[in-house]
Amino acid sequence: MYPKNTWYVACTPDEIADKPLGRQICGEKIVFYRAAENRVAAVEDFCPHRGAPLSLGYVDNGNLVCGYHGLVMGCDGKTVEMPGQRVRGFPCNKTYAAVERYGFVWVWPGDQDLADPALIHHLEWAVSDEWAYGGGLFHIHCDYRLMIDNLMDLTHETYVHASSIGQKEIDEVAPTTTVEGHEVVTARHMENIMPPPFWRMALRGNDLADDVPVDRWQICRFSPPSHVLIEVGVAHAGKGGYHAAPEFKASSIVVDFITPETETSIWYFWGMARNFNPRDQTLTDTIREGQGQIFSEDLEMLERQQQNLLDHPHRALLKLNIDSGGVQSRRVLERIIASERSPEPQLIASAQ
Amino acid sequence: MYPKNTWYVACTPDEIADKPLGRQICGEKIVFYRAAENRVAAVEDFCPHRGAPLSLGYVDNGNLVCGYHGLVMGCDGKTVEMPGQRVRGFPCNKTYAAVERYGFVWVWPGDQDLADPALIHHLEWAVSDEWAYGGGLFHIHCDYRLMIDNLMDLTHETYVHASSIGQKEIDEVAPTTTVEGHEVVTARHMENIMPPPFWRMALRGNDLADDVPVDRWQICRFSPPSHVLIEVGVAHAGKGGYHAAPEFKASSIVVDFITPETETSIWYFWGMARNFNPRDQTLTDTIREGQGQIFSEDLEMLERQQQNLLDHPHRALLKLNIDSGGVQSRRVLERIIASERSPEPQLIASAQ
Amino acid sequence: MYPKNTWYVACTPDEIADKPLGRQICGEKIVFYRAAENRVAAVEDFCPHRGAPLSLGYVDNGNLVCGYHGLVMGCDGKTVEMPGQRVRGFPCNKTYAAVERYGFVWVWPGDQDLADPALIHHLEWAVSDEWAYGGGLFHIHCDYRLMIDNLMDLTHETYVHASSIGQKEIDEVAPTTTVEGHEVVTARHMENIMPPPFWRMALRGNDLADDVPVDRWQICRFSPPSHVLIEVGVAHAGKGGYHAAPEFKASSIVVDFITPETETSIWYFWGMARNFNPRDQTLTDTIREGQGQIFSEDLEMLERQQQNLLDHPHRALLKLNIDSGGVQSRRVLERIIASERSPEPQLIASAQ
Repeated sequence: MYPKNTWYVACTPDEIADKPLGRQICGEKIVFYRAAENRVAAVEDFCPHRGAPLSLGYVDNGNLVCGYHGLVMGCDGKTVEMPGQRVRGFPCNKTYAAVERYGFVWVWPGDQDLADPALIHHLEWAVSDEWAYGGGLFHIHCDYRLMIDNLMDLTHETYVHASSIGQKEIDEVAPTTTVEGHEVVTARHMENIMPPPFWRMALRGNDLADDVPVDRWQICRFSPPSHVLIEVGVAHAGKGGYHAAPEFKASSIVVDFITPETETSIWYFWGMARNFNPRDQTLTDTIREGQGQIFSEDLEMLERQQQNLLDHPHRALLKLNIDSGGVQSRRVLERIIASERSPEPQLIASAQ
Repeated sequence: MYPKNTWYVACTPDEIADKPLGRQICGEKIVFYRAAENRVAAVEDFCPHRGAPLSLGYVDNGNLVCGYHGLVMGCDGKTVEMPGQRVRGFPCNKTYAAVERYGFVWVWPGDQDLADPALIHHLEWAVSDEWAYGGGLFHIHCDYRLMIDNLMDLTHETYVHASSIGQKEIDEVAPTTTVEGHEVVTARHMENIMPPPFWRMALRGNDLADDVPVDRWQICRFSPPSHVLIEVGVAHAGKGGYHAAPEFKASSIVVDFITPETETSIWYFWGMARNFNPRDQTLTDTIREGQGQIFSEDLEMLERQQQNLLDHPHRALLKLNIDSGGVQSRRVLERIIASERSPEPQLIASAQ
Repeated sequence: MYPKNTWYVACTPDEIADKPLGRQICGEKIVFYRAAENRVAAVEDFCPHRGAPLSLGYVDNGNLVCGYHGLVMGCDGKTVEMPGQRVRGFPCNKTYAAVERYGFVWVWPGDQDLADPALIHHLEWAVSDEWAYGGGLFHIHCDYRLMIDNLMDLTHETYVHASSIGQKEIDEVAPTTTVEGHEVVTARHMENIMPPPFWRMALRGNDLADDVPVDRWQICRFSPPSHVLIEVGVAHAGKGGYHAAPEFKASSIVVDFITPETETSIWYFWGMARNFNPRDQTLTDTIREGQGQIFSEDLEMLERQQQNLLDHPHRALLKLNIDSGGVQSRRVLERIIASERSPEPQLIASAQ
């Protein structure tokens, strides 16, 4: 139950730097590699000769060579050649539109005729010199929508991340959720509170006092198929909060690209983009390490929640105000999935 | 195929000393914890909010707090509160009668209206100063009845435990099996034999010569649902055997509480209660360590037997005289299970 | 989908030297052990008493003693005795014809009335003083026919074993495949090429120059049910190739006995027999180690290929000229399997 006519993050460029990468995305087993002119290519991970996974092979001269008997697969899914064989009649492999952009490799797992790179969301932080980005990848055994729920309801920070970004005041401020087209926004503003450890570190990283009251904000933006970009930050109290001048605040964007592997497993690309001290690589590393530690705290919870839901398939869950972000995001997804399955599918999945 | 309207051992108090414990019992996923006034509570291990396992949370002020978004669950299955929410309409969790007694936590997984703590078997050795107890817990992948069979036919000691409690003479004496109501008793008395290593250790522990002939006995008592208490001991030969005066014997009760997790897995609480030198903690530890080693020898056999039976579902097993204890115990269980499923269930499972 | 009325390699003698061996072959769970007069016996790995695996027991006086309660199983499948029991009425276990020959234990998993030791292939290299043999065993999760394909198409050496026995020239020479009765032969002769590392080592082992051009050959012989014996070798170029005099060549037989465990897993007995320097045990060990390393390179490919085929059950594979050896071998197997299932089965599986 996921949209397929849309762009998902498939991998990061470093994952295909040395050799092909086999990865299942939305149930499709795909091999990603660098084809001619360094372009990213994606074809079915199945050798038409005897079914070996092409991802066990290697790249030669821009083509993928099967590591079993040397069939040479082109990025168009056609066999280019094979030692001692005429290959013209060989069956074609499926290919997948793949684009390298913003530091990620994006893939379109559905109807290839509809794949339009212009539909990839613009990510200003990924192209501007004023921003720095660091992130990582987790493989998690849960439905991708459980991760969307997680990110669209940050009250869990108080409990799951009590020692870093959680604080009791999150619970005490109700979030507001709005829907604009396919985008769902859940926002929470907390005023005149003490910053928790992670934000004290960020304040120091921006050369600001870390032991004074702040205004804190969390603005979670879901957009299809499963991107959650969260504006987070703190400003010294009374300086305008979210709208405070840069010299009074430390803010960033939590980046979450959630790619379904199967119905109950995901590739979770997480990271943080910040627009203060963007050239401080040590700060980038410190933040990434901290974020990685924090986000790893969600893994057991999500996997055990998934298992509990599979064990209790008929049990209804609550939909509280704090769940509104996740609930509305699921509604958007349901509309998109229904549209994909209708006789005249409309291309709405990736329109921002 | 296990009785559910009965008391099972769920855990030992140390397992819930620091945090909640999630444990599946008779197919029910339950979280155990210390509620108000230190009382033991047991509720479904499922947060009514979003399905997270409550056992990942913590106890606060006698209530269980969900570790995901802070829902506060009461021991009555009702949500006490949740930050920023009105909880009156929240669905109730199932609760399970749970009682701490005799050094164990007991749970009633079936019809809660029938749960009566008076039905828990009396265990004299657990309340008397003249007895000491030490034990442990194994998780084993087998039907609980295979473990009952194991314990009601101790001829296996000769083969599985050859180096500790096994001896050829066990095979040579036929056991006698009697049924009284729901209790099944299999007894074996061996006269004028040399004690095996474990019993030599026990004789020394009771300040008795360990290199002389003894009379040895094993009296296995099954009572529903799956308790097997085994009176075992040796007395210097000719002093009256089982009835010998205390100064001539070393005897104890092997304690086995077998709790089904699923149809093919169990929580096996094993231990030994003795009434000699009860205040010698070093002896208790030595015995527990020895028993743990001995009992671990059964694990592979039981799990591989279970696998063999699953692979050969239509193959009939033999019911020999030595199997009579297990066979009779299964008959008692069948009657109880049938009774539970009848329109007018009678409460017989735990009556001793 | 494997023949059952045929001889398979079950194990090597060292595997039953100290205790019984439980092994599943063609879906049959069998225990192998040394019975009276050191003869090999094979019976169902299931104790008729309570279903314990007999392979957890021990051998006493030529009989198999169950390690649970001491039932004594004879090699005829009849219970010999059991402590305190009359065993005459006990149900019989299935037995399997088992023969020790050529350094292997062979088993006939199908209709026992048809088992004739004379049908075991003659292996000259296993009985002659002029030959030496070294080998090993792998457990692999793949259909046994994928391994036959692998061995009947050695073009994979160029890709999977590039650093040892692979070389580009293998690809450049088309193999010829012939079928004679149930035997399939795929042969390839490469002339005037430089020997790859493994063969340079073998040339040195036969006191021959290793830095000169050679003629190289590979003659793969499949015979039912799943034996692939491959004559391989190199001779100094121009000395007659395969037919060169012994002083100009290093040659050997790659030995592959593939025993189905289940439909998708095998016991793979691999080795090499050579007729140069047969008494040089160090050379035998060096070759075995090298071959083990080389053959282990196939494991991941075969297991991932198997997984890919299970994931794509309807996808047809190509049958190229290089695949002809495997394709013809599968045809032979299909005929044999069909014959086994016909009302009047003919015994053809093992006729060489």
